[in-house]
This record gives sequence, C-alpha cells and structure tokens, in this order.
Amino acid sequence: MNRLLLTSMTLCLGFAMAAATATQTANNAAGHTSASQAAIAVRNGVQAYRQQHEKAILTEFTGLLALPNVATTVADVERNAAVISTALQKRGFHTRLLTAAPGTPPAVYGELPTPGATKTIVFYAHYDGQPVAQPGWRTTPFTPTMRTGGTGPDVHDVGWRTAPSIDPEWRIYARSAGDDKASVQVMLSAIDALHAMGKQPTVNVKVLYEGEEEQGSQHLPAILAANAKLLAGDLLIVGDGPRDQSGAMQIVFGARGVSGLDLTVYGPRLPLHDGHYGNWAPNPAVMLTHLLDALRDENGHILIPGFYDDVRPMTPAEATALAALPDVETALKQNLALGRTETNERLGNALFRPALNVRGIRVGNVGKEAANVISTEARAAIDFRLVPNETPAGVRDRTNAYLRTLGWYVVDHDPTNAERSAHPKVVQANWDLNYAAYRANIDSHMANVLVDSIQQVLGTPVIRVPMSGGSTPMSMFATALHMPIISVPIANYDDNQHAANENLRVQNLWDGITIYAGILTGQGW
Amino acid sequence: MNRLLLTSMTLCLGFAMAAATATQTANNAAGHTSASQAAIAVRNGVQAYRQQHEKAILTEFTGLLALPNVATTVADVERNAAVISTALQKRGFHTRLLTAAPGTPPAVYGELPTPGATKTIVFYAHYDGQPVAQPGWRTTPFTPTMRTGGTGPDVHDVGWRTAPSIDPEWRIYARSAGDDKASVQVMLSAIDALHAMGKQPTVNVKVLYEGEEEQGSQHLPAILAANAKLLAGDLLIVGDGPRDQSGAMQIVFGARGVSGLDLTVYGPRLPLHDGHYGNWAPNPAVMLTHLLDALRDENGHILIPGFYDDVRPMTPAEATALAALPDVETALKQNLALGRTETNERLGNALFRPALNVRGIRVGNVGKEAANVISTEARAAIDFRLVPNETPAGVRDRTNAYLRTLGWYVVDHDPTNAERSAHPKVVQANWDLNYAAYRANIDSHMANVLVDSIQQVLGTPVIRVPMSGGSTPMSMFATALHMPIISVPIANYDDNQHAANENLRVQNLWDGITIYAGILTGQGW
Repeated sequence: MNRLLLTSMTLCLGFAMAAATATQTANNAAGHTSASQAAIAVRNGVQAYRQQHEKAILTEFTGLLALPNVATTVADVERNAAVISTALQKRGFHTRLLTAAPGTPPAVYGELPTPGATKTIVFYAHYDGQPVAQPGWRTTPFTPTMRTGGTGPDVHDVGWRTAPSIDPEWRIYARSAGDDKASVQVMLSAIDALHAMGKQPTVNVKVLYEGEEEQGSQHLPAILAANAKLLAGDLLIVGDGPRDQSGAMQIVFGARGVSGLDLTVYGPRLPLHDGHYGNWAPNPAVMLTHLLDALRDENGHILIPGFYDDVRPMTPAEATALAALPDVETALKQNLALGRTETNERLGNALFRPALNVRGIRVGNVGKEAANVISTEARAAIDFRLVPNETPAGVRDRTNAYLRTLGWYVVDHDPTNAERSAHPKVVQANWDLNYAAYRANIDSHMANVLVDSIQQVLGTPVIRVPMSGGSTPMSMFATALHMPIISVPIANYDDNQHAANENLRVQNLWDGITIYAGILTGQGW
Repeated sequence: MNRLLLTSMTLCLGFAMAAATATQTANNAAGHTSASQAAIAVRNGVQAYRQQHEKAILTEFTGLLALPNVATTVADVERNAAVISTALQKRGFHTRLLTAAPGTPPAVYGELPTPGATKTIVFYAHYDGQPVAQPGWRTTPFTPTMRTGGTGPDVHDVGWRTAPSIDPEWRIYARSAGDDKASVQVMLSAIDALHAMGKQPTVNVKVLYEGEEEQGSQHLPAILAANAKLLAGDLLIVGDGPRDQSGAMQIVFGARGVSGLDLTVYGPRLPLHDGHYGNWAPNPAVMLTHLLDALRDENGHILIPGFYDDVRPMTPAEATALAALPDVETALKQNLALGRTETNERLGNALFRPALNVRGIRVGNVGKEAANVISTEARAAIDFRLVPNETPAGVRDRTNAYLRTLGWYVVDHDPTNAERSAHPKVVQANWDLNYAAYRANIDSHMANVLVDSIQQVLGTPVIRVPMSGGSTPMSMFATALHMPIISVPIANYDDNQHAANENLRVQNLWDGITIYAGILTGQGW
C-alpha cells in the first residue's frame, strides 16, 4: 500500500511543489543563493559519511529504541536519559539533567558552543514514548525490528546487520522510532558527519530532550522557568511530528494545544442482568453515548456553547500558506479507505480549528465475551485539540458548565452511594489540562534563514505550515523563553505514531541527518 | 448491604403479601386446603432430611459447580452432562443424552415414572453458564467458595466443610451457582429427601437439562422436535431465573425473548494520530455513539420505526397480577444507588415492554492506557428483549431497514476497502436471532395446582408473575410441545447471575429442595 501511496502522491507533488516554491520565493525576499556551494558541500559530505556508517548509525539508534520509555515508569526514562547524555558527551556536548522535582522524568540538556558564533539555536525533542498497550504489535514495542516497507501482509523482517546493503525504503519498527527518538539520533549523527568533514557549526548549539512529552509535559514549565538563562537563544527548533503526507519537507510555525478528559458515568451499583432490569435500571452505556453526542456532532462540530469564542482568526498570510499546501487528501482518502471526511474542508484547514476526539470508550464486553449485563459504569477518554487563543482551563470550565446545564452532576472523584442516589445523572470528569496552542510569525528573519538552510542542503523547496494538528509544547516554550519557536519534523507521515507498529522509514533517518547538518551550517544566522 | 435490603424489604413484604394473597385466593377458586396435612408432612420431612445432610448436599453441589461449563467449549459441558447423568441414575432415573448433531452440547434427559400417576411433569433447567471474562471475580469462577452473605468489604470466606453448622445466609460463589445448576441440585436432593421419608411422587417425573442456554439455545428446537414424544407431558416447569427481589416465592408465566446484535463501524483503515487527523478523518467512536443514540433514547424508548407494532396488549388479568406484585422498587433504588429509573413505571410494567440493552462498547482505550488515536473501528454489543408477538427476524429486518434510512451501508461481513471507500458510513451488523417471547394463561388447572402445591409446602403465598424480564426458551417449548410452560425460579435475586461473583444464598438452596418436594407430591394433578 505504501508503494501505491507514494506513486499517487508523486502525481500531486509536482503541482504542490510549484505552489510551494512560489510561496517560498515570495517569503524569502532577497534569497540566499550565495550559500549554495557551501550547502552542496555539506550535502555531499554528509551523504558520503552516512554511506560509510549506515550500520553504525542504525546500531546506535536501535540501541536507543530498545530502552523502554513510557514515562509513567520514571526509572525507564532515567535509563534513556543516561544513554543519551553519554552519547552527547561523546560528541563534545556538556550535559546536565534538568528535573523539576525528585522522582520526576528528567530532561537532558546539552551545550556545544561554537567559537565566533553570534547566534544560538536550541534543539528540542522528547525521548519518552506513548503507552504501548495497543493490540496488534507485530513485534514487541521495545524489540526494534527492521522490515520491508509498508504494513501489508507481504511485509517481512530483514536481517539488516548482515545484509549487503540497507534499502532506504525499509522501516525500523519500535515505540518512539518516529515519535520522537529519531530527532535525537539525527543530531548525534549530524555532528558526527560534520566532524568527519572537518566542519564547524555556524551557530552555538543547545539541546533539550524532554522525558515526559507523551504524558503531557507536566514538569516542563517548571524546568523552563528554572533554566530560562541556560536555555537562552535566538531560535528554538522543535524536532517532533511527521513530515507532510506528500513526503515534501515542511516546517511548522505552530501546534494545536491539548487537554485530556476522562469521563465515567454511573449505572446501578451492582451489575444487573439486562433481561431482569433492562428498561428500568439506567444503562450507563446509553447515558455515556448521549453525553458524548451532546458534546460534538458527526462532522467534528463541537456543541459546547461558546466553544469557538476564543479562536484567533486566520491571517491572510496563513490562509495563503494553507492554500499552498500540497493536495494529500485525495490519496489519503483512497489509502485510508475513507468514504467521507468529517467536513468538506481541506486537511490543513480542518486542523486549524479546535477538535474534540473520542480516544476510547469502555463498557461491558463485545463479541463472544459480551454478557447480558447492565454495567455499573461506562468510561470514555477524550482529548481536546486547542487553537490560539483558547486555554485549557477555559475549555474545562465551558465543558463542565455545559454538562451541568444538561443535568449532569459533575464530580472529580469516585461518587459516593449517597451522591449516586441523590442525582439522576452523575459523571466523574477528570481533566488533564496539558498545554495551550501556539502560532509564530511565519515570515521572521530567523524563519527565513531556517527555511533557506534546509532548502539549500536538500535542494528542494520547503513548505511553511502555519500550524500542526498534533500537539507539541510550543506554547510552553513561548511562555517561558523569548525566541521564535519553529518545528522541523523528520519522520514519515505513516509512522503509526501513538499506535501499534510505530516505525521510521530509513530514508527519513538519512534525510534528517542531512537536514540537521544543513541547519547547523546555515548561512546568515 | 444485603442485611439492609432484607430489613427494608421486610417492611414492604407485609403489604405485598396481603395483596398477593388476595390475588391468589381469587385465582384458586375452591382452594385445596384438604392437602394441608400432607404438605406439612412433606415440609417437615424434607427439613429433617436436609438438616441431617447439609454438608453432603453442599459437597455434591460444589462438585458440580467446580466443572467449567461455558458452552463454547463442548468438552466442558459434556463433562457436566456425564456427572449429572450419573447423579440422576443414582436416584433411579433412566437417562439419555439428547444431541442435535455430533459435537454440539448435549441435553441430559431423565425419566422417573411413578406407578399409578396419571400426569407427567417435565422439569427443565440448564447446566451451562455465562462466559466468565468479567473483571472483579473475587475467587475464580470454577472454584466454588462459601462466604458470609453480601458483597461488601466485610464479606469473608468460610471453611464450611469444618464449620460446626451452616449459616443459611452464607452464599456459595461460583459461575452457575444461581443460574442455573441450583435447579439441578434441588431436584436431586428433593428426590433423596422423599426417598428417605418413604414417599412416592404423585406424578411421573421427566427432566430436561440443557447444555447451551447461555449461548442462545441454538440446538434446542431440533432436540425438542426430534424428541417430542419422549418429552410429552402435562406441564413443563422451567427452573431458571431469580426469585422476586422481596424474597417472596413467585412463579412466572412467560419470558421475554432475546436477540443479539453485534455492531462494528469503521473509521480509517489505519489508526491515525488524532492531532494530525482529528476533525478530518471520521472517528468511528463518534459514528458509533450517534448510531446507538438513533436506536433508543435515555428512557428506554426504542426509536426504530414500527418497533412496537407487534406488541401484544396486556390482558386485564395480567394488569391485575402486575399491580399485585410487591413493591421492590423503593428498596432496589436505594440498594443500587440509583438516582433515577429509565421510566417512571413499576419494574414489572417496564419489563412488559421490549428493551434494547447496550451490553458493551469497545473502541480504543481509556484511563492511563488511552492513546491519542483515531481508531480503525468501534464495536458495540446489543441485545433486544422481545415480547409477544414480536419475532427475532422481524426485529432484525426493522432494525437493518432503519439503519439504511439513516445512511448506513449495512453488511454482514468484514467490509472490503472498496466498500469502505464507496460508502460514507459502513456498519457490520451480525445478528444472533435466538428466540421469541412467551406468555401462558395465568389461570389454567395445572397452573392452579402448581401454585397450590408450592403455597402449601412453603406455608406462604405464591405470587403469579405474568412475564419475566429475563429470557428463557419458553417459546421454544411452546412451539414444540403441547402443554403449559410455567417457570419456578429458586435463586436469590441478587445472585449476580451473568456477572462476576455469581452466587447462591444457602437458604435459597434449602427452600428450593422443599419447593421441588412439594411439587413432586402435589395433590389434584
């Protein structure tokens, strides 16, 4: 299927690239064509180094992926932090672990000053991963496994360590392969490549690798606040998220925020036979579906009163950038076997609005395990994807207030029997407020130099995406640190991040090394 | 909680009993008071026998409960059938296994003729049990465990084999303790007690113990059709289901039917990051909640057009019997911590209508396991409880037609990618049509003798319930065999049947033996 996708994508790419190039040319004003020769030298040098060291790079990367990294187990992320610190030190970085409080996941800080450089770039990534309980993992999440590309039945494992050569369409399967240890690996390998070429970066380099992004970055604000001076710089690059579905290189100027909401509604205190009580005892499954349907419709529209009041309007520059995004939708619909989309908008425009996602519902059993029972409770997991200028607290307050107008008695604890008896409809609403959204100026000086350094080293246009649908804690950096925040993603779009069989396409790893080397040696900072 | 319930129940029971007695007196016409001395002798004789053999009875019963009996594993139910056959033979029954086809669960048939008896009673029960995957079993389902009564935190295990005496408020915890092996055990022990008293039954006795009731009794119609002559009789007593919530003795003249429906709706073919695709890719969780909410409201009302067209009206005698049912609702609401019921009707009236129960919903994960994913599919398990004169096929056809009017493309197989791409909303609807409902004449001769024999042996009034909310295959018997079908339940109402921690209160086992001995020695058949 991936081959099919890539083929049909190629068809749209020509058009998309033309549009994107026009946009970039307008944005880049004077341009930076004088850097072309230097950039080509970097490109060739990195490629030569990489070709000679492919297995060494993959050995280091799969070693990192083999470390369990779900941040609910702090000892696991601490082991990752130690390995990453050692790897940075080998490249000349001074490192420190930054921790908000004892027993919380550490962030790895590293610093590689460049004599004579006047600008400092801070590279952010996270080394923790999503939970791994999803069914369907073909190999266990922390046994990195190389396979031929795609996810169909013809995919097979590859013994890459003994293979005569590495096919760049192969993929490495493991939790965090794409989200987000790839961004750590490409920094390490880019520094190695520049060192092998005898080249210095043109900027001071700082790295900040977080250890609990997938758990909502709860301690990151405290880490940033306590280390604002240490982290000072002129540009913060967020290395997270997938590249565009077209395979084209894009950089991203914002990200939706996110807040989680866990809901539990209550039926009878004891499970009941649904024949002997069905029609009389309230069924929590039915209560929950009606609650959820009151929150949003089938077209993604959120029904909570006033929910869209705080949404910052789109600027003309953002509208232009969105219109210039390549058409990935046609091929996506085909490949995902979608008979419809939630709205008739383009993907980028749909992601510019807030979203209410139902992540899971659990009540009773289905299939052969289904029993004829009215359950005692029903649970749902929701996330809200926020846009500027919504705040997590504002979303929580609007939602809770709305639930109350619908007759729900809203609690934040397991309700007592007295509470359950006293109220017709009781819901436990547990919020995980996480962080707000962010959108940067898509046309600043640092933005233009960054775009140019990547375009030059790749030799292909870079697409400017005003805001990512997925969430990274850009708003936290924006609140704590005074510099533009721009995201440079490197993973393949179909990396199954957050799901079973997460993977990274090998060519994306190679390209990532080139991109990072290009940024580190960019001209005009 | 059980002590609390029984106490508050006692308060209502006086009133309920007065009402019930009035009804029965009217129903019983001339009465059968001449049998009182014989019935009292049976009552006392059974009690004396039981008191001397309590541990032997419990040893046999727990041995039966220790046999796994989920009918999806035929070898397991076959082991049960063999043990039950041997137990019947020990009591003088001639037995046979009745099987519809090789490899399907056998029914155990047994026959105990009484010289000179003119009437034959067929006793039905089932020895298979519900699936056991529910979380929360305090001990494993097939490790029968005696505990002090109730389900609260103060409940503790009891070493009944070495206890000086058996507290009748203790409970035996195991799958099928209440549903439905108790009905098998009380027949065995009632025969033993009569034998010890030197008493003959007044009727010919036949038993039919089914092995796949909890899987929908799929082979029962074939077994009945092939053995109609063997099973001929004047009354079929169904021994299944719980006694009234008040603890009063009730016999039941009908049962709702049941049909199962498993629904699967489809989102993207691959799981997607809900940040990068949320608002654009259809979320199957949201599609499913809207589908379910279109089927029924929060008050139990089914929204499928024409769904109530086939419902047989209530007769005046049924209305009178329903009105005479004891008030269990007040105490139930308190004990179940219910802040509302689905309608303001009384329980018995609510169960007189068809019901649509959502048994389970499964999509994604919740709580700590929740991931930020738009799932590929969402599943729900439903059952319909039918009433006369609805048919399972009629319900299926109305539901499928309604789904189509709502824009769903309804399939009975895993849809192909082409089908998913071609239709905005695809649902796989898998029906398990099971059986229809049944209601018998509540005032026939055999009904009146049966009511009287139980009233006499217990010394308390018997409540006539026109129809049970739960389903037993009474309609199958009615279709195949030409005799009245009446249900005589013995389990405690709070036996957690179909759920975790299923149990039988010991006093219900003792009462069940007495009731069966009373029926077997009834006067006037």
